[in-house]
Amino acid sequence: MILQQLDITLPQHSYPIYIGENLFNDVTILRNHIPGKQVMIVTNKTLEKLYLTPLQRTLKSFQVNTLVLEDGEQFKNLAHWELILNALTEHQHHRDTTLITLGGGVIGDMGGFAAACYQRGIPFIQIPTTLLAQVDASIGGKTAVNHSVGKNLIGAFHQPNAVIIDLNTLKTLAKREFHAGLAEIVKAALIKDADFFSWLETSCPDILNMKQKTLAEAVKRACEIKKHFVVADEKEAGIRAHLNLGHTFAHAIEKSLGYGTWLHGEAVACGLVLAAQLSQQQGLISQQETQRIQQLLEKMQLPTQLPKELSLDVLLAHMQMDKKILQNKLRFILLEQIGQAIISDQITSHDLKKIPQFS
Amino acid sequence: MILQQLDITLPQHSYPIYIGENLFNDVTILRNHIPGKQVMIVTNKTLEKLYLTPLQRTLKSFQVNTLVLEDGEQFKNLAHWELILNALTEHQHHRDTTLITLGGGVIGDMGGFAAACYQRGIPFIQIPTTLLAQVDASIGGKTAVNHSVGKNLIGAFHQPNAVIIDLNTLKTLAKREFHAGLAEIVKAALIKDADFFSWLETSCPDILNMKQKTLAEAVKRACEIKKHFVVADEKEAGIRAHLNLGHTFAHAIEKSLGYGTWLHGEAVACGLVLAAQLSQQQGLISQQETQRIQQLLEKMQLPTQLPKELSLDVLLAHMQMDKKILQNKLRFILLEQIGQAIISDQITSHDLKKIPQFS
Repeated sequence: MILQQLDITLPQHSYPIYIGENLFNDVTILRNHIPGKQVMIVTNKTLEKLYLTPLQRTLKSFQVNTLVLEDGEQFKNLAHWELILNALTEHQHHRDTTLITLGGGVIGDMGGFAAACYQRGIPFIQIPTTLLAQVDASIGGKTAVNHSVGKNLIGAFHQPNAVIIDLNTLKTLAKREFHAGLAEIVKAALIKDADFFSWLETSCPDILNMKQKTLAEAVKRACEIKKHFVVADEKEAGIRAHLNLGHTFAHAIEKSLGYGTWLHGEAVACGLVLAAQLSQQQGLISQQETQRIQQLLEKMQLPTQLPKELSLDVLLAHMQMDKKILQNKLRFILLEQIGQAIISDQITSHDLKKIPQFS
Repeated sequence: MILQQLDITLPQHSYPIYIGENLFNDVTILRNHIPGKQVMIVTNKTLEKLYLTPLQRTLKSFQVNTLVLEDGEQFKNLAHWELILNALTEHQHHRDTTLITLGGGVIGDMGGFAAACYQRGIPFIQIPTTLLAQVDASIGGKTAVNHSVGKNLIGAFHQPNAVIIDLNTLKTLAKREFHAGLAEIVKAALIKDADFFSWLETSCPDILNMKQKTLAEAVKRACEIKKHFVVADEKEAGIRAHLNLGHTFAHAIEKSLGYGTWLHGEAVACGLVLAAQLSQQQGLISQQETQRIQQLLEKMQLPTQLPKELSLDVLLAHMQMDKKILQNKLRFILLEQIGQAIISDQITSHDLKKIPQFS
């Protein structure tokens, strides 16, 4: 049953995002977005057990091949991406095949990147199964794998034919993963919608109790905000950078600790607090606003303090290779107020040192 | 000195093609198309000796890094593509770096594909040094590497900032490579311009003697024809398929013989004759037209007969994985007359058997 639908309209491509329950069993939705006769499902070992059978049953009128990959961020690399391409060639998939990614951000990003490159681009459908992927990785057409020196360094822009968000998948998601996904919802509110931020403060208990209706509302509003920025700036040339609030810090944290130590959403939560503190230090937001941000993230059981072992120097070294850096200047997204972000190219390492966590 | 300039105008991107002499020494042209401070030159061992030094001298005000790859089609694969990505990360190239491909189709396609994927797309400049690449591979935004089961199976559409065609490079090109490049010029005439075909018949001796003025004219007109199809159909959804005249056969020939046995242009020459014979067998062109095509290609010292050891069955087996096949039907580009191509989805293996070379 579809509870919410958003349509993403881009200059050269449009696609719907369905939010609902039991969507894997809905033959009509899937069929409407599969142009040919072949389907390649890419998933991981964890999700295979939970959802592969109903999905395959729904698609039984197609030539369905399935590739089951290992589960984990450490497998988001060129070697595993190549396994997807090999599976497509092995089963002689043509240019009009449809790749379906059933999984979290790793499967979605890596499968999407394979779809972007196989025969220079084939249709694909995203079925994100983590909260993080539902509100973030499945929208915007960003696909990628990690490189040893940096996250998502190799990739492409490739828009899906459809995104199918089945909220039932959150019931089988680890609590820690669920909380991590909330960080991107908070980020969405911070960069665009102060009312949504207040609503999150009020609704936090219901969200943590996974009340389906509240959750659907939270996912929908976060998706709408991401939609706003993606439609305005498909190729990330300008305003879309606001979506990176907290992410320059987050990527450096993840790299410093080693990928997988903290979940991406956990690093984002910490990065959001650092971005708030930097914004406050730059005279943009008040101490009270910084505290509200930190308190909401803590209520969501997310980390808001850097691990003791990470120094500013270590983080800076990792930021040098961050792809948001333009001509060796440090670029940060800052908050003018809760609900409004700006881009600054003027931040120096000296400014960063003044943040309480670093001094 | 620029002799000719074509501007390619696409919906989201425009770029110039310069045709001339001594363009490697022209600081202005290069600088106009390099947005940042970093440049990565990708070339091969053969061209390194011939042209790298003047190019590096011209770019001395930038951070220039160079990656020299092995020379040959057998190195156009994901492993060598990854070397380019590694070179970019190793030297900390940022999103505004410019990748310059100095080489033939292998370097251009593989370097272009690396530029397409590094940080989800960086600027690049094509400097094609073979006739084939000058009239074909450097225009249209198609980038790719080969996969063990098929040519150019992994790739992306990525448009260059500029294409710089220095005709001097043809003087150092092997004669066999030069002749192979002529096949794509003949193909261009066949699909679009009967007058150009007649002009090629007349000008063939001057072209073979590499008279610079005649050569410039031939390259320019072939580029204009390719431009016509690319501008009309950037993503190869329809009419651009005409550019594949002879190529379904050519790819099957290359795969059957093993890549590198015949040059791509040689396989295209043979494929053009097969396409002409198929068109004649379908009642589209006359025997006389088929003969003119065959005779021009033979004057250009190109093969027009399949190697004896290749049977239709072997070729068909390889065509099954050709990416021009839609839903398992065999798609061919046919000639209605010299200068006019059509797409046919109706060709059966039975039709192919009636071609004299196969019967």
